[in-house]
This record gives sequence, C-alpha cells and structure tokens, in this order.
Amino acid sequence: MRIESVDFYYLSMPEILDIGDGSQDLLLVRLQAGPHIGWGECEASPLTSIASLVCPMSHSACKPVRDSVLGQTLDDVADIDRIGDLVRANSLDLLQASHTLSGIDIAMWDLLGRRFETPVYRLLGYERAEPRRPYASVLFGDTPGETFAKALGIREAGYAAAKFGWGPYGLGSVAADAEQVAAAREGLGEEGIVLVDAGTVWGHDLAMAEARLPALQEHRVTWLEEPFVSGALDAYRALSGKSGDVKIAGGEGSHSEEMARHTIDHGGVGFIQIDAGRIGGISPARRVADYAQQRGVTYVNHTFTSHLALSASLQPYAGHPAGAICEYPVELKSLAWDLTREHITPDADGFINLPEAPGLGMTIDFKAARRYLLDVEIAVGGKTLYRTPELVA
Amino acid sequence: MRIESVDFYYLSMPEILDIGDGSQDLLLVRLQAGPHIGWGECEASPLTSIASLVCPMSHSACKPVRDSVLGQTLDDVADIDRIGDLVRANSLDLLQASHTLSGIDIAMWDLLGRRFETPVYRLLGYERAEPRRPYASVLFGDTPGETFAKALGIREAGYAAAKFGWGPYGLGSVAADAEQVAAAREGLGEEGIVLVDAGTVWGHDLAMAEARLPALQEHRVTWLEEPFVSGALDAYRALSGKSGDVKIAGGEGSHSEEMARHTIDHGGVGFIQIDAGRIGGISPARRVADYAQQRGVTYVNHTFTSHLALSASLQPYAGHPAGAICEYPVELKSLAWDLTREHITPDADGFINLPEAPGLGMTIDFKAARRYLLDVEIAVGGKTLYRTPELVA
Repeated sequence: MRIESVDFYYLSMPEILDIGDGSQDLLLVRLQAGPHIGWGECEASPLTSIASLVCPMSHSACKPVRDSVLGQTLDDVADIDRIGDLVRANSLDLLQASHTLSGIDIAMWDLLGRRFETPVYRLLGYERAEPRRPYASVLFGDTPGETFAKALGIREAGYAAAKFGWGPYGLGSVAADAEQVAAAREGLGEEGIVLVDAGTVWGHDLAMAEARLPALQEHRVTWLEEPFVSGALDAYRALSGKSGDVKIAGGEGSHSEEMARHTIDHGGVGFIQIDAGRIGGISPARRVADYAQQRGVTYVNHTFTSHLALSASLQPYAGHPAGAICEYPVELKSLAWDLTREHITPDADGFINLPEAPGLGMTIDFKAARRYLLDVEIAVGGKTLYRTPELVA
Repeated sequence: MRIESVDFYYLSMPEILDIGDGSQDLLLVRLQAGPHIGWGECEASPLTSIASLVCPMSHSACKPVRDSVLGQTLDDVADIDRIGDLVRANSLDLLQASHTLSGIDIAMWDLLGRRFETPVYRLLGYERAEPRRPYASVLFGDTPGETFAKALGIREAGYAAAKFGWGPYGLGSVAADAEQVAAAREGLGEEGIVLVDAGTVWGHDLAMAEARLPALQEHRVTWLEEPFVSGALDAYRALSGKSGDVKIAGGEGSHSEEMARHTIDHGGVGFIQIDAGRIGGISPARRVADYAQQRGVTYVNHTFTSHLALSASLQPYAGHPAGAICEYPVELKSLAWDLTREHITPDADGFINLPEAPGLGMTIDFKAARRYLLDVEIAVGGKTLYRTPELVA
C-alpha cells in the first residue's frame, strides 16, 4: 500500500512556562496508507518541524521531508528503513529533517503494527517486552527542602528510582549542588537509585563537572547525565575516566545514529540515552540499542512528553534484560497525559510494561486533543503550503 | 548599542531545479543596532530557518532564535560570541537553530566592520587577507564529453584548479566514474589541480569509495570530497588510511564547531571544508580554522551561493598561507550573482582577494534582490508570527 497522507498537528498548553519541561507542547503525526492509520510524535519545536515538512525544495539535497514520504510503498519493515534513507538523502542539507522524520518513522511502525495486529516490539524482532524499572523523572526543587519533599513523595508513590534535573543544579556553588544531591538521597532513602541530570549546564567545562563528583560519589548517584553539550566528546571522555562508580550518561541530543555511536565510542558514556522523537524514530534508535549492547553500554530511553512518545521510546530496547531502568516522567502537563486514552503505569511490583495491543498500543483521545490544537498556516509566494488539517481518526 | 531588529528575506529563482545547485535560493539576513546595519546569509531551507527564528517557545531550552538576539548589546566582537552562546543554550533542542544563527552571526560581523570601518578579517585579528587560488566549482557533466568541455572552458577562463561534483559520479560503474575523472584531467591539463566531490553518494559504504581510488590516484586528483555522509567518521578514517596521495575532504555539513573537530580528530580528513552559513557563522568557523592549523589539516571554505556568502566564508581563514585554495562557484544562478553590487573576481594572476571595504565589503542590490523576494507568512493560533518585511537599506 502507498502512503496517501502525512499530517502534522501542533498541540500546546495555553501557556508555555520558561522551565525545562518538555511536556508543554507536542507535534502529533498522523500517517495513512490504504485503510490503515499510524500515529507518531516529533521532538521538538513543532512549528519548525512543520516548516521542514512542507518547505519548498532548495536543491536536490534539500527537499521537504514530505516529498520523500508521500506515495511511497509501506508494506513491511524494510520499507520503513528505505523511506528513512530517502529522507536522509533528499533532505541532507535540511537540518531539522531528523526531528521531523522521527514522528513519521514512529507512525510507520505504529501503522504496520496495527495492520499486522502485533505490537511494535515484535515487528522489531523481540519475542517479548521485558519489564522496566521506571525512574521518576522530575526537575530539582528550587531549594534542597523542595527536592527532599519531591524525593519523599516519589518514594511514597512506590518508585525505587528517581532522576532530578535542571532547576538550580550546576548554576550555583559546588556546596549548594551537594546539598541538592544530599536532599535527593535523603528523600529517596538509602536503597533508592538516585540519578542526576545537569542539563548541559557546564557546556565544555570539565573542571566544573569534576568539582561535583565528590558529592555525587558520596551520595552513591548512579549516573551524572549531560554534564556537557552533546558535542563535547573530549570532555565526556575525560570525565568518564575520573567519575569512578558514578557513570556518565548522555546522548539525548543525538539526531542521527552516527551521533549516538560517537557518544559511545569517543565520549565513553556508561549509559546512552536516546529520544526516538529526535534521532529519526524507532528505526535508528533500535540500531543504537544493538550497538550499545555490543559495546557494553546501557541503553535508556529519553522521554519527556506523552505516553504515545513513551511507548515509542521503549520499543527499541524492549528485549534488553528485565529490570533495566527506563525514564518515566511523572510531572507531565495535562496535554501530554490527555493525548492518549491508554497510559503506561507501574504494575504492582513497580515495573513498567509495554502494551500488548497492536502497534504502539495507544489510542488518541480526539476530543481531549482538539482542546490543545493550534491552528497553523504557512504561505510562501501567495501559496498556502500548510494549514492545520482536521484532527480525526 | 542594542540589536533592534533582525529580519529574514527568502529569495528564490522562479523555478528550482532538482539538481545539486545550492545557488537557486538564499535566506538574506538584515540586522540593525542603532544606526548600523549588517547583512548575512543562512544555508539552507529558508522557510525552515524563518520558522526557527519566530517559533513559539517549547520550553526553556527550545526558544525561538530571535529571542536570544533582539535587545542584546552589540558593541564588540566579544558580544558576538556571547550572543552565539546564548542562542546555542536557549535553542539547544531546536535542531535548525545553527543554520539560523549562521546568517545572524555573519550579519553581526558585517555590522561591526561597517561601524568600525574595517574589514571583518581585521576584526578577526588577521593583519591582512592573503590571496587565494580559486577552484572553479562545477557539477560533473552528464557525460565524460560534457565534463571534458567544462574542464577545458574552466582552463581557458584562466583557472588553475577545478572541482567536479555530483551529477552522475558515483551512481554508475567504477569504469564510468574513471572516465569522468579522466575527462576532467584531460580538459584541465596536466598542470591543473583536479578535485572530485562525491556528494555523500556512498553513504557509509567504504568499499564503494575504495573502488574509485585507483582512477583518482592515476589522474592525480588532489582530494576526494564527501565520499560518505558527515557522520560516517569510521568510514572516513578507514578511507583516509588507504587513499595515499589523494586526500579526503569533508565537513561541509558541520553544524557545530564540535562536529568539525570530530571530522578532523576521528575522520582523519586532510582538508576540512566549512560553510559559514551552516556551522553557526564566522565565529565558530574561525575557531575551526585555528584548530585545523594546529592539527596540520588544511581549512577550505564551502560556498555555493552569493558573493555575500562567499566573502563571509573566506574571512575565517583570511590569514592562512598565501596561495591556499578556496571554493569559487562559477555556475551561479542569476539570483546569487545579482544579490550584491560588488563581486569577488580573480585578479590578473588568477587569485581571489577579499574586499578591503568595511565589513564583508558587499552592498545589497535592492532593486535586483526585490525581484527574487518571496512573500512568506506564518501564523500560529491566529497570531501572525512572521510576514516578509520590506527589503530596504
């Protein structure tokens, strides 16, 4: 069957706050081939990805993403790879394209899963989806007291692991940061798995990161995430050599399979974190998951939006060992929660399990979603290239 | 003085051909601070970069590029670095941002040069701009005969060096490619510098590239450019170890300083090619030029649009040794030629010299430019975020 339509929907909270919370908007993708429909989601900047979907061609290697998708045959998983390769070649000089492709790739997997009535992880070749230990992913409190209260709440909610990130961490003194980490450990308890996310705050500055290591080691933090910007592989490599039992985590910014491999090979990370909504979708994420296993690096999902995106982000490593951790945002804005009828919630033992329903196992709640839908219109040279389509099943 | 406005103008040929010619459209940037104006240009996909300039904020690390530029103080070159860092931090998750920043960075350098009545290369700390040997940059002919004719024409026009790229090269047989290279050598003569650009045609496939090496060696080609996609560092490294006197060139896809450094450090290239319109502007390009020199790698500009972009692309390595080569497109579409009143043309000895006029030394030809201007309108949630401004001095 041929892909007949690919539609993008920009959904947003009424107000966007200037905080590190990626669940405040999203870009929903609807893909149709014959009678079948699949859904996906792109990270980030919905308007920019819409523009890259429909922009006029600049030259043979800078074409709108849509041109490499519409009309293509989509009958099996090899078609997904072929279409991804087409987009990467035809949109080589269109920087935004891999974020845009991500949601399309995810929707293609969902569509084939629905068509063949099987979960995506099976299409990926995994016999079953192993349970994951979710880490509650939250922002640091503004004060150690707030962080302590958050951590305590997470523990009481039954989570064995939590990640604290952004907020004031890394912006003040080494002592202030140590207090934040101590508060997280105290609130989560001696047995809890504490993770810290520096949110690239130190840029390329190795010394700034190194100064935080003693407190992270003292409080037995499992990983320090994104001490540096994605490209600072030398700094990653150097810090990884000094951090002892505290592993370095990174890679969420990867917008290609190659970039993730470089983070493993040249950055020396212990955990590679991949956002299926950025790297080009489930397909390259799966290849990175395989590569990480070969290299003894632990693959983890990066997710900070809806449960559609959460399901997509868990598929690439569904068959990795049971009990491995996964990111699980617990402070979602209403938009990200309301998008889907189903939700992935911890079971009685506190584990997360992928849906056994076809595709990604998520149904869009259209009535709820329409409340967040923004009308977008883009015109070039007097011709309308994009106008928000009606959001229907 | 504060930056009061940053305006983007999408200029295009009436018809865009599906060929590897980047001069068919451009995105012109006008930046104003006090009474001073500077001009720049972004590569590529004008509409997508406009969207990233004005998109609504998604979260604290995904803001529209404009928000980190408007209102900022711009009094000296340190301000340019500071504003670049701001954009990179505030638009961390906005993939298109570095293409967008590129034109703004270039316009900031032009503005300060005009304000201080000095060429940009002097602001960069170079005492003088050394002459460059231009290589005529053209597409391969559809047949060896056409390529021979192109090469002969280039030689008769006085060029000592030429680069042939894209077109059929790499898509057919090894023998057909060898004939193309032989034709280029024959047309350019025994003394000519022949360069070949594979335009990423072999993806990650080392064997495909390796099979072309004997012909490239036989015809004494100086470099093989972009045998692989930007991220294929392992393939670059492997080919560099086998290519003998034929050096490997690459890096034009770099959209960050780090990516260019990785191409040098892990890809083993002999020539690093940087497009100031993609990497984030003149500022990171200059840092890469310095780094390349330290590592014994030759820096070369990548340029395929107007002479405003050409001037910008030559500034970062203006002080590198006299006689080093530079890219010089000779098949520009009328738009790219008409944009500026001044043009950079070979002198009596066949060398290219940067303008000694303030800034980038280029004046926009408004009357000509307006003929190519496309009206763009972007509205989100009923609010117009962008409408093409009037193109004035």
